[in-house]
Amino acid sequence: MAQKIKLSTIADALGVSTATVSLALRDSPLVAGSTRERIKEHARAIGYIYNRRAASLRTSRSGIVGVVVHDIMNPFFAEILRSIETELDRSRQTFILSNHYDQLEKQRTFLDTLLQLGADGVIMSPAIGTPAADIGMAEDNGLPVVLIAREVVGAEVPVFRGNDAFGVGLATDHLISLGHRRIAMVGGTDQTSTGRDRYQGYVAAMERAGIPVDPSWRVAGPRTKLAGFEAAPRFLDIADKPTAAVCWNDLVAIGLMNGLARAGLVPGVDVSVTGYDDLEEASIATPALTTVWNGQREVGRRAARALLDRLNGATVQLPQDLITPELHVRQSTGEPVERS
Amino acid sequence: MAQKIKLSTIADALGVSTATVSLALRDSPLVAGSTRERIKEHARAIGYIYNRRAASLRTSRSGIVGVVVHDIMNPFFAEILRSIETELDRSRQTFILSNHYDQLEKQRTFLDTLLQLGADGVIMSPAIGTPAADIGMAEDNGLPVVLIAREVVGAEVPVFRGNDAFGVGLATDHLISLGHRRIAMVGGTDQTSTGRDRYQGYVAAMERAGIPVDPSWRVAGPRTKLAGFEAAPRFLDIADKPTAAVCWNDLVAIGLMNGLARAGLVPGVDVSVTGYDDLEEASIATPALTTVWNGQREVGRRAARALLDRLNGATVQLPQDLITPELHVRQSTGEPVERS
Repeated sequence: MAQKIKLSTIADALGVSTATVSLALRDSPLVAGSTRERIKEHARAIGYIYNRRAASLRTSRSGIVGVVVHDIMNPFFAEILRSIETELDRSRQTFILSNHYDQLEKQRTFLDTLLQLGADGVIMSPAIGTPAADIGMAEDNGLPVVLIAREVVGAEVPVFRGNDAFGVGLATDHLISLGHRRIAMVGGTDQTSTGRDRYQGYVAAMERAGIPVDPSWRVAGPRTKLAGFEAAPRFLDIADKPTAAVCWNDLVAIGLMNGLARAGLVPGVDVSVTGYDDLEEASIATPALTTVWNGQREVGRRAARALLDRLNGATVQLPQDLITPELHVRQSTGEPVERS
Repeated sequence: MAQKIKLSTIADALGVSTATVSLALRDSPLVAGSTRERIKEHARAIGYIYNRRAASLRTSRSGIVGVVVHDIMNPFFAEILRSIETELDRSRQTFILSNHYDQLEKQRTFLDTLLQLGADGVIMSPAIGTPAADIGMAEDNGLPVVLIAREVVGAEVPVFRGNDAFGVGLATDHLISLGHRRIAMVGGTDQTSTGRDRYQGYVAAMERAGIPVDPSWRVAGPRTKLAGFEAAPRFLDIADKPTAAVCWNDLVAIGLMNGLARAGLVPGVDVSVTGYDDLEEASIATPALTTVWNGQREVGRRAARALLDRLNGATVQLPQDLITPELHVRQSTGEPVERS
């Protein structure tokens, strides 16, 4: 009977948060001594029994989930992370983050740290070149893995990401429907599954419209705002002067638009530009950016739910669950204008 | 003698990274079995003795440093975090991050997690309202604390941040020197030491120039790009039409410039705008943003060095080390233009 008393019962009775109750019962020094005593006394009075070791044995959980991505500072991940955090908060999981910057060694060190800590699981956007064996070894050592944004061929764990080929197809189709024929693709790399999918989505849309893709239209590489800005001269130097650019993501698109403006052109008028992700920033850019919503909040929510389900012993469906992107048309795209 | 062999000796001999050697010697499942055996065999052959427990007792260190800020996704922190990470990498410290979103409970839960993990220390931008006792309790429990960006009155730990009052003074002086008299301040809050310092820096500069500050010129609140964008109508509605805006940070400034553009004005011509931080993005904005370099890389570097020095037993100077900001003049400021 006594075990059925919840932390929230104590919290409500004393007008403190459940987190404070939890910390106090674990004798955390972070709760002031007097509050801690008041909480423990009340807990004892109503018959609540807390035993950390017992609780840990009962659940076999540390309450810690790791998240590792190539760059936390990319707002695309920021939006995913917020929704992961919201889900994990609800289950009182603590959330620790790390960057791997696409360095396998850094990713391995973080996974190793999580294993040492007895973390409950990890959500990761795998570094370029992650072998399936790395995922398998984490799993075999009791660290369940859920992937976001990128897949690892051969790894039998859930993957949550958008349908990139379809999404880039939406942007490309939109430009074609406005009358563009010479359409460049700016940014991205073939080294990731996402990069290959997005480029293929662009090529497939062009081919569907009967437009042969000129290899010079690909400005590969940029994935950040600064790189997009710096790519503007390369875009403007392409011999047959494309009238539009399908960009790798919103950051590249906004950087490119700033670079075009610096070159005296009006983005959205002289050159049409599309983004990818529909970051918060896309709608307030000048001009407001036509882009593809990539479901990042949904990716985060589903990934966290899948991990929590696994921790709770539920079976999680493996076939990867592609989120269907949507085109959001704004002011950065219009009819083609020939540059002299 | 044997103990003097370094990981790098083994790494160089086998053509692998020191991180791989370290993981292999700790029997990490993240290193493929064959590689692990090869490394351990070579280590044995040359007489290297690794004993994790002994190593841990010898150093009393877990190799984990926590970093907690109110919002990792703010590029201001991103730039600080990169330089913290660079320093910590050099000392083979693993770096785990968390957000507190200015919620004391979240900050406490993270500190509690670090205590449970036996983390070596924490670098934090303290949540609004952090009592000095929270810092003291972490320290008393063996978790050294270094603060960045904000101070906590009464906490006797190192603080690394810029001289905000001086920095905002530079921006305000610059606008006054261009002929502006009606200068608004957009963004920020009085709830943080930074917020109070920046507002005081603006007021002091105006007073030095003999310009009485009109309370209606303060558009308090915004700290993000979206909030800066949404503040544009409030700025434009101020009765006596200020000709310039000193913004809380670059994000607010860029958001406000986008909002002014949306209202048909040309930022940098019709309204002068200054930022704060000199993020990477400031120089590529349209127009390029006049802003105040806030030394974020320096803040990160010094904070990490101070923590590592403390971990190595060195005495760290307490008096807080204010970094002197610099004004970077670009295209978003010019002579005042009266709006009809």
